[in-house]
Amino acid sequence: MAGSPRRAAGRRLQLPLLCLLFQGVTAILFAIFVRYNHETDAALWHQGNHSNADNEFYFRYPSFQDVHVMVFVGFGFLMAFLQRYGFSSVGFTFLLAAFALQWSTLVQGFLHAFHSGHIHVGMESMINADFCAGAVLISLGAVLGKTGPAPLLFATLLEVVLFGINEFVLLRVLGVKDAGGSMTIHTFGAYFGLALSRVLYRPQLEKSRHRQGSVYHSDLFAMIGTIFLWVFWPSFNSAPTALGDEQLRTALNTYYSLTASTLSTFALSALVSRDGRLDMVHIQNAALAGGVVVGTSSEMMLTPFGALVAGFLAGTVSTLGYKFFTPILESKFKVQDTCGVHNLHGMPGILGALLGALVAGLATHEAYGDGLRDVFPLVAEAQRSATSQAVHQLFGLFVTLMFAFVGGSLGGLLLKLPFLDYPSDSQCYEDQIYWEVPEEHEDKAQEPLRVEEPDTQA
Amino acid sequence: MAGSPRRAAGRRLQLPLLCLLFQGVTAILFAIFVRYNHETDAALWHQGNHSNADNEFYFRYPSFQDVHVMVFVGFGFLMAFLQRYGFSSVGFTFLLAAFALQWSTLVQGFLHAFHSGHIHVGMESMINADFCAGAVLISLGAVLGKTGPAPLLFATLLEVVLFGINEFVLLRVLGVKDAGGSMTIHTFGAYFGLALSRVLYRPQLEKSRHRQGSVYHSDLFAMIGTIFLWVFWPSFNSAPTALGDEQLRTALNTYYSLTASTLSTFALSALVSRDGRLDMVHIQNAALAGGVVVGTSSEMMLTPFGALVAGFLAGTVSTLGYKFFTPILESKFKVQDTCGVHNLHGMPGILGALLGALVAGLATHEAYGDGLRDVFPLVAEAQRSATSQAVHQLFGLFVTLMFAFVGGSLGGLLLKLPFLDYPSDSQCYEDQIYWEVPEEHEDKAQEPLRVEEPDTQA
Amino acid sequence: MAGSPRRAAGRRLQLPLLCLLFQGVTAILFAIFVRYNHETDAALWHQGNHSNADNEFYFRYPSFQDVHVMVFVGFGFLMAFLQRYGFSSVGFTFLLAAFALQWSTLVQGFLHAFHSGHIHVGMESMINADFCAGAVLISLGAVLGKTGPAPLLFATLLEVVLFGINEFVLLRVLGVKDAGGSMTIHTFGAYFGLALSRVLYRPQLEKSRHRQGSVYHSDLFAMIGTIFLWVFWPSFNSAPTALGDEQLRTALNTYYSLTASTLSTFALSALVSRDGRLDMVHIQNAALAGGVVVGTSSEMMLTPFGALVAGFLAGTVSTLGYKFFTPILESKFKVQDTCGVHNLHGMPGILGALLGALVAGLATHEAYGDGLRDVFPLVAEAQRSATSQAVHQLFGLFVTLMFAFVGGSLGGLLLKLPFLDYPSDSQCYEDQIYWEVPEEHEDKAQEPLRVEEPDTQA
Repeated sequence: MAGSPRRAAGRRLQLPLLCLLFQGVTAILFAIFVRYNHETDAALWHQGNHSNADNEFYFRYPSFQDVHVMVFVGFGFLMAFLQRYGFSSVGFTFLLAAFALQWSTLVQGFLHAFHSGHIHVGMESMINADFCAGAVLISLGAVLGKTGPAPLLFATLLEVVLFGINEFVLLRVLGVKDAGGSMTIHTFGAYFGLALSRVLYRPQLEKSRHRQGSVYHSDLFAMIGTIFLWVFWPSFNSAPTALGDEQLRTALNTYYSLTASTLSTFALSALVSRDGRLDMVHIQNAALAGGVVVGTSSEMMLTPFGALVAGFLAGTVSTLGYKFFTPILESKFKVQDTCGVHNLHGMPGILGALLGALVAGLATHEAYGDGLRDVFPLVAEAQRSATSQAVHQLFGLFVTLMFAFVGGSLGGLLLKLPFLDYPSDSQCYEDQIYWEVPEEHEDKAQEPLRVEEPDTQA
Repeated sequence: MAGSPRRAAGRRLQLPLLCLLFQGVTAILFAIFVRYNHETDAALWHQGNHSNADNEFYFRYPSFQDVHVMVFVGFGFLMAFLQRYGFSSVGFTFLLAAFALQWSTLVQGFLHAFHSGHIHVGMESMINADFCAGAVLISLGAVLGKTGPAPLLFATLLEVVLFGINEFVLLRVLGVKDAGGSMTIHTFGAYFGLALSRVLYRPQLEKSRHRQGSVYHSDLFAMIGTIFLWVFWPSFNSAPTALGDEQLRTALNTYYSLTASTLSTFALSALVSRDGRLDMVHIQNAALAGGVVVGTSSEMMLTPFGALVAGFLAGTVSTLGYKFFTPILESKFKVQDTCGVHNLHGMPGILGALLGALVAGLATHEAYGDGLRDVFPLVAEAQRSATSQAVHQLFGLFVTLMFAFVGGSLGGLLLKLPFLDYPSDSQCYEDQIYWEVPEEHEDKAQEPLRVEEPDTQA
Repeated sequence: MAGSPRRAAGRRLQLPLLCLLFQGVTAILFAIFVRYNHETDAALWHQGNHSNADNEFYFRYPSFQDVHVMVFVGFGFLMAFLQRYGFSSVGFTFLLAAFALQWSTLVQGFLHAFHSGHIHVGMESMINADFCAGAVLISLGAVLGKTGPAPLLFATLLEVVLFGINEFVLLRVLGVKDAGGSMTIHTFGAYFGLALSRVLYRPQLEKSRHRQGSVYHSDLFAMIGTIFLWVFWPSFNSAPTALGDEQLRTALNTYYSLTASTLSTFALSALVSRDGRLDMVHIQNAALAGGVVVGTSSEMMLTPFGALVAGFLAGTVSTLGYKFFTPILESKFKVQDTCGVHNLHGMPGILGALLGALVAGLATHEAYGDGLRDVFPLVAEAQRSATSQAVHQLFGLFVTLMFAFVGGSLGGLLLKLPFLDYPSDSQCYEDQIYWEVPEEHEDKAQEPLRVEEPDTQA
């Protein structure tokens, strides 16, 4: 119990000091390195002899905005299903994603867009930074409610770097295709978060179990997240692809895949329940698996039928995962997965990677015509066969899993540093630890929290 | 009471089996018939000699996304005003619309885009399928809370077919203009649903009346739906029109019409109340009537003044409908209209059809210039006069009403098939029948439901 | 107590009569003056020899839709944080903004787009009208909960006119740049509202203090507003700029500025609280200050680093304002600022104007190249120096403050006209005065309201 006032002061300062430090460092690095790219800079753009209509803004900005909504509204509210953790779900999403956008601009910039000493930012860097923020929020879903914002900022610092390196290895070194990020975003984000959660395992989490469920209106708030994610997922997968037919095809495939995962989720959710009633957890999450599973293959000639099959399988696997695998994950593997990211992003992400390898291996000059140059440039230039592309895709999945597991475990060890402040086992999933909660709510909550207070300083 | 366990098992399996069956059939039909169209297929697009900027994606995808938000977020949350039916409102919207997108791709494809044995899908088919889903959800509004998801899937199966045929008759056979669907979407969807509701009339619905109202926060959730519908309606009406001035004009007219229906709804809502207080039901619904009423005419030279007048009238008629006509509809016509779709989509839809006929009849070469080819191609090519176009428009309304009444009545009879499971009169508007509801809420609800359980198996 | 029934009848009729009167007058003015512009009119557009792809719709409509969401969803739900004023927050936003769109079309049209006796409307007029509606809603934030819809319609009538004149003076007469409206929208809207609130000062507002806070779920509804505002703010600032690099640069700068204001808001919110806990009021509001502060300068060559610094400062100033300045504003200056618009729009708006002047003063031909013609046309044409542009910018701020203070004060006096109906001091922040509230909620509220009823008629 000694040091309790000091600890309180420490907790008070950890978050603000980290925010200020991180912001200070990124600002300095921005000053030194970050410059407008050719399409953003007044002088550079006007040097060229092009119409304003050629600016990438008009081709990608609407898709970017949809992605931006998904990251901040979609993920934020999807995680607000917890009955007493809505402020934290939406608020920490907001904080971590905002930091990830800055930090990822730097990391991805150094790796992808570093020319003559400068990082050049524009439309694409905005989309890519949002993608990285998406991965960070997927990881957050695994540890949600069990860590505070300061440790989460540390985890984000690390994850953004590893995300950038993994993405660089896949896209640049291995020549892997992964527009919608089945591997780079979903698989990486999920297993990074699960590894984190494994290292931070809490044997006594049972003490907060009563707060781990939803209430009626928190489930409706979560559906706001779900529906916006579902509606805009075609934009997510198509935002970074080549222009023209490819963006349209990616959007179309994703659109069909999601309809199928929705139908299979409703079917399976009713089937696996005792009395045929639907489970909101499944609808909120597994219905989205159709977007994850075509993250790699939706830019390819998947065919609308292929998209339906993929979505159907993903919704099925994901719903079964929530019902049967999540409990095992905790009891056998000591992985506590608050939002079930293993079911929504992990398994469907791996499935998506395998599907991408399959569809890549089936690519022919006949099916893609001159469009092969956009989808599989190395195959079009005869630098590799379709089969070789498929093997590279599989290797990309392996690399991603390695980065995620090793990175997440390292991250977990980092987050065990003694000075970082955590909620006690009985204070998990509780906004009041980090937020001034309006009285009405505080009244109800005050008593159990006071009783268990010593727990915090244990 | 005999057979109650069998019935329970039957209920348990109806929804999942239907989902699996419907998904299986559409998937097989997709495999046989559905192919990427010219703008979506890698090989076909790259055969042509066009810039990627010409791809229809860049002209219609942002509008499509707005429509997509309206269908899933807008309609879903608009219907979440019921105090204990939020899961079902948002969830069944999700399920039915997802299925309608697949099924309508096939039905509309066979009718509109069937070439050399294949249905060609792309940007336009995505928009059209969403439009059909919109009609399905309008019909849902009439029977909301009184049917289960399995009967609703059957109704959707039928409605999508009839929607497609009616749309084909109007747009292809009769040469009627109806971009935003005053007739094909709103009038058809509303009267199909009302006919359904008539056949499924429940004389004892009074038993669930206490659950038919809203609570404070459910009204705010509904406003999320309202505002997104209102904000994106200009995209709804303009999504399928000819490119250029026509999309802009349609959006602009809809924008003004909606402002006027908002003002008249506030005025009338206060006027017709006993004490001058506003009624959330009016604001949530009637304020949107301005979008419905210009569904046919907003692509025409309606003029901004015409848009204001149309919107004003629609808001007025709709608010008065909620206040005075909905009770009569139930007491005299035995039509129980949960969301008042007759006021929001039925009457404003008919008004919109009449307005469309009027504005079409006034069309001159002078007013439209060379733009006449886009708006009234048959008039521009001198195949019919403006007056003849107006008569065709009126006949289109008549055809739509026939399809809706006859189809909805048939649908109602289909839904009376004895094996389909329904909530009892005392269990309407109650999520717990179909959803695992979080405890907090269940506690309150458990008792009255248990007491009346026999009712279900009657 | 005399005249109480008459007063009640008066209250009953004020709102509907004003709505009908205002709608009637704008409709007549629309009939006389408003016409489609060249890009919207069928005949005019088809006269020209241009591709449909050149229509402004394709360059600005997606940005317009984002702005439209911000105005109706963003502002509406941001103000729904009050525990018992959600209907009014969302509903009055809806009403006032709808009227402002019509009225501003006329006012801005007379000033900016009046040619040969007609106002020409199209893509730009839609964006500009939404901007004006934004300013109206900022002012609403200052007086929220303390006035009724009828007085607010009067205030809107006046504010739209003054907004239009101030904007005309700045943009047309002074040649000031202010794309995202740090001055014309945020500074003007905030100080107009604060002046209003000053004149309408209520010394006994303490009586409603218990309703001025939030409850748990009302804070989550408010976060819907916050996040949509945050996500779409890049579209807000870039919607009206020159095409090409300028739209992209404006969006990019705003995007970075907002990430920085989010980080500084979280840091400062934790720092200034007694126990290190975060305050939802800060997160909901101050995190948005990064969008306000670059309203003027984001179209300029601010650099990404500059955007971060600006956002960081704005978030800091805004959070400190909520903590320390809002109480002083009430106690010393007798300004009751319900939503703290002084902190979110007032101070960051002024800061944004100063930053705009600074960045304008630093403009060189080298930094902007031929793009100087788009950003600072008068400097490019050598009609004024960069320093002179900076001085004009500063003078624009001064003019704006004058218009806002004088206009808001006049508006306050107008709203003190005796026939206008107001809630009593003990009935502020209460939906039941203006709305039929569902019973569940009414039950709790009925008693205190009845007891204090005489207060109303005092």
